[in-house]
Amino acid sequence: MEIDRLKKLLSDYKKGNISQKKIIEKLKILPYLDINSAKIDTNRSLKFGFPEVIYGEGKSISQLKEIIKRLKKINSNFMVTKLEKSVADKIIEEFPDLIYFPEGKILTLKKEKPRKRKYICVVSAGTSDLEVAEEASLTCEILGNKVKRIYDAGVAGLHRIIDKISILEKSKCVIVVAGMDGVLPSVIGGLVSRPVIAVPTSIGYGANFKGIAPLLTMLNSCSPNVVVVNINNGFGAGFFAHLITNKI
Amino acid sequence: MEIDRLKKLLSDYKKGNISQKKIIEKLKILPYLDINSAKIDTNRSLKFGFPEVIYGEGKSISQLKEIIKRLKKINSNFMVTKLEKSVADKIIEEFPDLIYFPEGKILTLKKEKPRKRKYICVVSAGTSDLEVAEEASLTCEILGNKVKRIYDAGVAGLHRIIDKISILEKSKCVIVVAGMDGVLPSVIGGLVSRPVIAVPTSIGYGANFKGIAPLLTMLNSCSPNVVVVNINNGFGAGFFAHLITNKI
Amino acid sequence: MEIDRLKKLLSDYKKGNISQKKIIEKLKILPYLDINSAKIDTNRSLKFGFPEVIYGEGKSISQLKEIIKRLKKINSNFMVTKLEKSVADKIIEEFPDLIYFPEGKILTLKKEKPRKRKYICVVSAGTSDLEVAEEASLTCEILGNKVKRIYDAGVAGLHRIIDKISILEKSKCVIVVAGMDGVLPSVIGGLVSRPVIAVPTSIGYGANFKGIAPLLTMLNSCSPNVVVVNINNGFGAGFFAHLITNKI
Amino acid sequence: MEIDRLKKLLSDYKKGNISQKKIIEKLKILPYLDINSAKIDTNRSLKFGFPEVIYGEGKSISQLKEIIKRLKKINSNFMVTKLEKSVADKIIEEFPDLIYFPEGKILTLKKEKPRKRKYICVVSAGTSDLEVAEEASLTCEILGNKVKRIYDAGVAGLHRIIDKISILEKSKCVIVVAGMDGVLPSVIGGLVSRPVIAVPTSIGYGANFKGIAPLLTMLNSCSPNVVVVNINNGFGAGFFAHLITNKI
Amino acid sequence: MEIDRLKKLLSDYKKGNISQKKIIEKLKILPYLDINSAKIDTNRSLKFGFPEVIYGEGKSISQLKEIIKRLKKINSNFMVTKLEKSVADKIIEEFPDLIYFPEGKILTLKKEKPRKRKYICVVSAGTSDLEVAEEASLTCEILGNKVKRIYDAGVAGLHRIIDKISILEKSKCVIVVAGMDGVLPSVIGGLVSRPVIAVPTSIGYGANFKGIAPLLTMLNSCSPNVVVVNINNGFGAGFFAHLITNKI
Amino acid sequence: MEIDRLKKLLSDYKKGNISQKKIIEKLKILPYLDINSAKIDTNRSLKFGFPEVIYGEGKSISQLKEIIKRLKKINSNFMVTKLEKSVADKIIEEFPDLIYFPEGKILTLKKEKPRKRKYICVVSAGTSDLEVAEEASLTCEILGNKVKRIYDAGVAGLHRIIDKISILEKSKCVIVVAGMDGVLPSVIGGLVSRPVIAVPTSIGYGANFKGIAPLLTMLNSCSPNVVVVNINNGFGAGFFAHLITNKI
Amino acid sequence: MEIDRLKKLLSDYKKGNISQKKIIEKLKILPYLDINSAKIDTNRSLKFGFPEVIYGEGKSISQLKEIIKRLKKINSNFMVTKLEKSVADKIIEEFPDLIYFPEGKILTLKKEKPRKRKYICVVSAGTSDLEVAEEASLTCEILGNKVKRIYDAGVAGLHRIIDKISILEKSKCVIVVAGMDGVLPSVIGGLVSRPVIAVPTSIGYGANFKGIAPLLTMLNSCSPNVVVVNINNGFGAGFFAHLITNKI
Amino acid sequence: MEIDRLKKLLSDYKKGNISQKKIIEKLKILPYLDINSAKIDTNRSLKFGFPEVIYGEGKSISQLKEIIKRLKKINSNFMVTKLEKSVADKIIEEFPDLIYFPEGKILTLKKEKPRKRKYICVVSAGTSDLEVAEEASLTCEILGNKVKRIYDAGVAGLHRIIDKISILEKSKCVIVVAGMDGVLPSVIGGLVSRPVIAVPTSIGYGANFKGIAPLLTMLNSCSPNVVVVNINNGFGAGFFAHLITNKI
Repeated sequence: MEIDRLKKLLSDYKKGNISQKKIIEKLKILPYLDINSAKIDTNRSLKFGFPEVIYGEGKSISQLKEIIKRLKKINSNFMVTKLEKSVADKIIEEFPDLIYFPEGKILTLKKEKPRKRKYICVVSAGTSDLEVAEEASLTCEILGNKVKRIYDAGVAGLHRIIDKISILEKSKCVIVVAGMDGVLPSVIGGLVSRPVIAVPTSIGYGANFKGIAPLLTMLNSCSPNVVVVNINNGFGAGFFAHLITNKI
Repeated sequence: MEIDRLKKLLSDYKKGNISQKKIIEKLKILPYLDINSAKIDTNRSLKFGFPEVIYGEGKSISQLKEIIKRLKKINSNFMVTKLEKSVADKIIEEFPDLIYFPEGKILTLKKEKPRKRKYICVVSAGTSDLEVAEEASLTCEILGNKVKRIYDAGVAGLHRIIDKISILEKSKCVIVVAGMDGVLPSVIGGLVSRPVIAVPTSIGYGANFKGIAPLLTMLNSCSPNVVVVNINNGFGAGFFAHLITNKI
Repeated sequence: MEIDRLKKLLSDYKKGNISQKKIIEKLKILPYLDINSAKIDTNRSLKFGFPEVIYGEGKSISQLKEIIKRLKKINSNFMVTKLEKSVADKIIEEFPDLIYFPEGKILTLKKEKPRKRKYICVVSAGTSDLEVAEEASLTCEILGNKVKRIYDAGVAGLHRIIDKISILEKSKCVIVVAGMDGVLPSVIGGLVSRPVIAVPTSIGYGANFKGIAPLLTMLNSCSPNVVVVNINNGFGAGFFAHLITNKI
Repeated sequence: MEIDRLKKLLSDYKKGNISQKKIIEKLKILPYLDINSAKIDTNRSLKFGFPEVIYGEGKSISQLKEIIKRLKKINSNFMVTKLEKSVADKIIEEFPDLIYFPEGKILTLKKEKPRKRKYICVVSAGTSDLEVAEEASLTCEILGNKVKRIYDAGVAGLHRIIDKISILEKSKCVIVVAGMDGVLPSVIGGLVSRPVIAVPTSIGYGANFKGIAPLLTMLNSCSPNVVVVNINNGFGAGFFAHLITNKI
Repeated sequence: MEIDRLKKLLSDYKKGNISQKKIIEKLKILPYLDINSAKIDTNRSLKFGFPEVIYGEGKSISQLKEIIKRLKKINSNFMVTKLEKSVADKIIEEFPDLIYFPEGKILTLKKEKPRKRKYICVVSAGTSDLEVAEEASLTCEILGNKVKRIYDAGVAGLHRIIDKISILEKSKCVIVVAGMDGVLPSVIGGLVSRPVIAVPTSIGYGANFKGIAPLLTMLNSCSPNVVVVNINNGFGAGFFAHLITNKI
Repeated sequence: MEIDRLKKLLSDYKKGNISQKKIIEKLKILPYLDINSAKIDTNRSLKFGFPEVIYGEGKSISQLKEIIKRLKKINSNFMVTKLEKSVADKIIEEFPDLIYFPEGKILTLKKEKPRKRKYICVVSAGTSDLEVAEEASLTCEILGNKVKRIYDAGVAGLHRIIDKISILEKSKCVIVVAGMDGVLPSVIGGLVSRPVIAVPTSIGYGANFKGIAPLLTMLNSCSPNVVVVNINNGFGAGFFAHLITNKI
Repeated sequence: MEIDRLKKLLSDYKKGNISQKKIIEKLKILPYLDINSAKIDTNRSLKFGFPEVIYGEGKSISQLKEIIKRLKKINSNFMVTKLEKSVADKIIEEFPDLIYFPEGKILTLKKEKPRKRKYICVVSAGTSDLEVAEEASLTCEILGNKVKRIYDAGVAGLHRIIDKISILEKSKCVIVVAGMDGVLPSVIGGLVSRPVIAVPTSIGYGANFKGIAPLLTMLNSCSPNVVVVNINNGFGAGFFAHLITNKI
Repeated sequence: MEIDRLKKLLSDYKKGNISQKKIIEKLKILPYLDINSAKIDTNRSLKFGFPEVIYGEGKSISQLKEIIKRLKKINSNFMVTKLEKSVADKIIEEFPDLIYFPEGKILTLKKEKPRKRKYICVVSAGTSDLEVAEEASLTCEILGNKVKRIYDAGVAGLHRIIDKISILEKSKCVIVVAGMDGVLPSVIGGLVSRPVIAVPTSIGYGANFKGIAPLLTMLNSCSPNVVVVNINNGFGAGFFAHLITNKI
């Protein structure tokens, strides 16, 4: 029920055009959530102050173009994640104002200027985890956060992490992306007192089982400042980091 | 190396009692981390501004008493989690100033006065999830946070959650505890824009597999404001909620 | 918002005590679902025309007594499932009008008289599956359905099932309870044209994995008239059978 | 044994051409089920009043053409499911009277006119689940049922479902198709009192494990009006919905 | 339909008391399998020339006594497997002619005299696998086979097996019982040309997963003369060994 | 050590050319198994009276040609299994006397004439299981056994199996190949008294998990005359059937 | 064949008492491995220079007493692992010269004096892993190795490990025992250049799955100097450490 | 902090240019590990006396070329593992002094001359395991070890292994590579007293589950001289063998 219809209903009732019984009935029957639709939802952009996000993998070029056309019309910023370069290229042909970040496979309308001095750290264990790490970093940046990247800081070279303790400690929160054995979030969680968002990746082989091994490692972390998101979900980690950095 | 020994070393060096080569050698040989021990650690209480936490399950009464004696001596607050009432009773006999919360199975020295008006919401799906939910709630409270509990709000009675949207929305963050199908965090994550910390519990039967079902549901949540901790890890969720509410 | 408060609000508005802007604001802020609470929910008994169901396992005697006291006050029929005899006995001491069915471990206030001639078939594979089968049968009966039980009809003695084809075919729907290899629902689904609700049980050993083996067998059934519920969920199967027999 | 042979046997016996001992022996030796073959089986079409169904995936074009030729000869309607468009095109070249529905990947001879006003609701969570949802919807329609589609109604935008409660409640039954976390069937099962047939899909990534996550979510659903079919089994859900809507 | 009723039916038909149409109808309606019941079934003892087998685990003493009473009445030999000594003792009090074998946990009426010189070998890897090995050996013996036991012949002491090659080679078939890593069947299958029936046991710890490890080892055996039965299923292996030794 | 060398050694010793100490030493040092090599091993063909078997999948054409060249030189029959037609064609170009069976993907030198009237039954559940079933059938035939094929006899059309009971019962043993739910071996094991070798296949989708579902079904079979081989291992089943049919 | 019998055989042959044909036959028939039995086997004590090891769990007191009696007779040292104190006490009553170590649950005849200055490090992550760590330490010591224990050195307090780097680096090899997330072996493997033997333990809860989580972490370790033994297998790690420290 | 900066700091302090408080502060703030960086790490080559290792799979040609350029500049030997021939060829075009070993898929700068007479045995079960076996062998050789290869020595032809016992026994340690059932390491561990490093491979089908079956077999090995590395991790096994052969 749009506000206008509600106003008319109330006016009619006040004028005596409809009885109290009738108006109560109507209020009951009408899809009640409509009343609050502006607040509760419906647009993720409104709810989170966040651009619309489209999971790019598996969508056709024409599907993506249609979605983008619609979003541009309502002037909303947006992100398409997990988008192959070849697909992005074809979309940019039609929408040349879009920007594509191949390292993180994200297509977006614009990156916000970082709004403040505080920053989020994104740490990754190996070069192979780079893509997921970049997905997280870019998500943070597009949302207007400053990011410090500490890449290729695996446990096999632990000193590289220990060198960075003060950078980590001074951040607002830390996203740690790791495949293989997935021990890095536990180690960082044990070294610094910041919230750590752990992202397992499917990088590895053998008993890695496409990311199950690092996922379990992270869920069982002995450091109580570690929470976990889905395997390869760099976007989710970036979004959550943004949320706790800006909205609390 | 404690500060005192370092001071003496430097003084000796200045006085010429030891050579530069010697002091560099000693700085190298000495367990280097000692230098910074006050900062980096070593005591979780210092690191996080947080009481020491002892995982109570599987520890003997005498082990627990000894740990508590030591902690009381250094005047640190502490929490013992997953502690059966029968064990707690025996410990309290010796330390009558301790407080035991049977619903959340936590033994502690004192609960902080809530420091601020902002609050954390703890939601649980079923009565069976109560223990884990209380572990989370009490952890938050012991750390000095105000908590609003919304218990027994399962999806089977969805309206109970929808009724509470504004309470949830006004909180700093939401902890959602759920066993069985574990759908509640996704539902709440879809309704409010707050960070949601999802805690799967091992409550359920059959294809629940001791919490694997809700764990997977939560990791796959379509709501990007949801992160996950280990099965039954109410303490971890409470700690993380405290961290993002107070330290960012 | 209860109806009374809504009425008052509307009256106040009509009288001019509150402005239109104000009443719209209030309608927005008030927990909107309250308006419709009678319809949407809130009581499973109203929603499904079904007695309240309490999962008995893991609840204490005092918890159960309190719940029963409350339910008896509102005159609602109810079922407590998965309830051990020893616990049931203690409850009946206080509420001697309750009836306990030890084979299906269900405690209830009353069993409805079967309302019609049409019946539901409950088939079980082995004597060990009896408890789950009885949980299903009693659920159907308590809800007012006629039940024909065909127990101990495992595939190892296939002729026992073939003998009963016409009884199965004439039923409204068939619940098949099976552990071990769980092949019975597929076999019955292949023999008759009735809807088959398959219930895997945790009966078995070795590579049965507490019911995973029959669960997978049933989910992969080649007979398209077979659907599946959770392992040991006799109640769920009985409830669903009641639903499709009476409500469609 | 065809009826004719049985008749001859009985006549011979009556005439005294064969002894009682002999006829009993023959009755024993003859494949006994032949006697009842018309009743018990043998043709799914007869048994369920349902067109023959062919699982299209992995069958060669020539295999499919041969099967279709045979089915057309006996004038039976049929459905080929999970059939790629490229394959369907080649088949239609030979059988131009066939109809192919690319969204649900079904090839059929004809869609029945909906026989009645009552309808089945098919709900899907995300655009990626569309194919399985359409398989379910088309299966229902080909069998002569009216279908109301509610697509892209994921929990992340819960109000979209709440808006449709009355449509769902007035349906005969609801098929809910969902991948990722698979929470939608639980939510709908909690909102309406209709039978809900849940179809997990393999859509998702990471800890989704090709549909295991939503499958477990659905099997553990707290709503007792939810039953489950195999991952991606849109056809099975559609068939079962047809069965309980028309045959009970 | 028992033979008597069939005879009467045929007589009535011959006498003209019932028409041909009528008798055909009756033959159709009657549970057709009854005709052949003596042949097809119904009693495992008849079908396999084998005593009735009762899975003892989880059955109550009174249930077992009743079953035994019934079986003794029809003069059938029988075996109760997986039966604890304490339970067996109570049953023997009532039926003193029964024999209990505690090593294999089998209760039986009588052990057949071995009928022939050919024998079955039962090999076990460790002392812990003894119970399952004995279940297999006793099953063979009760059915009238000669058994040669080679126990505690694990791969860690491979020479113990190599010493026995000629005994194994001269047997009719070999049952190999092994827990832990379950390598023994592969090794024996590689050494001798006899059929090998592999029985994984749940003996082990850690990554043994209650017998999954040896089960997988055996299913993947490179020796083509190895087949597998369920974990701990000593009876099944013994039965199958009897079957291929005597019935082919 | 070949016999000739042993003879020479003994002669030399007898002649006094070497001392007793020396000959004992040599007997110790020499690879002792050589003495018995003719018996124990070494050639699968000798051991089992069976052609050499080569697992074709993943071997290059040149590797296969080399192996075949070697085997032809020693005049041994052989089978290459799981061999794609395209690869087989290239090999036959060089060895035109080889025969390729595309339905079972087996390349062989010659098929033995069936040696006896007794036969092995190979049953398969669906057309998709045909390849594995043919691998089993051809293996039996190449080894000189008569085979009766009963294909496409799934449980959804149970009467098709019941029709064949006497053919099954008169066989030496039955190989049952089934994917999907894998119930067919249990059903056949319950109907006939022959040894049943169950072969799960990876045919299916969703919760089939590439053959795990039918594998578990078969391992948990309630029929004691059922043993199991690895998923898709048609060759293993055929080999074992040959073994128990001919060698016991 | 013992040496004596072989000598006699050769003498008889030389004397002409038996023919060459005969002696060859006998050499073939005799269990050939006997010839080399001293070398190949047969007694683990001889093979590894190691006391006999008995897995204590699940063995009865009388079984254990019998084994010990036999071992004492041959003057062999031995270890019984995983032995509960209550059982050990009863055994020591009869054999008062045995020593029991309750922390590692090992019963032994004597601990060797450490033979050399070089030592093995045994590190454990948490107090709960103590038992398995002690099993490893005691195994090393009983075999005559010097052990340095570094217990309770979890990653949550990483500095505790970093403090010990030089102790670890100077050891011969490092055994790391860890449950929960199992990250410690990776961390230590990254810090020092010694061989690391990782022992996962079943300590943990939730998604730990009785040690699967740390097992996978360790198998996927990025440090190439890490190998893994079975969950809780402290003995195996200690044995292997002894082997590579002393036998290479 | 490089030594030079530390020296300057100490000099300044001695001269009185900075206070004691200041220097302590600086020592605290400076990345403390820098002091010891030469010792602790940082270059795997220094730490282990081992060439740098690059995991080749999934890295682009340009990424690899850049890494190689950098490594050649610092004159370090290196290995690229899991590198396809087509990629290696392109790299060698630019760096013609590199050597590629196609059987083990390793690209390296140079193979060391074997430094000593002692050797490592690398055993593989089947031809399909060759690639992983060669990865292990080449790793050993590149590091300067002598290797004896015993390939294609599966358990199905056990005598082939028994023939080689003395070669195995005289080695420093044994690497055993096996897929399928993975029994070979247990068998060899039972025959010889050398340390055995077991490498499961993903070779197999059906219930092999890409190497899980042999991995579990090996972890559960009854031979205490067996440790395990990740599936297909030939490099890790070779590295560890080198480590225990040369560094202890």
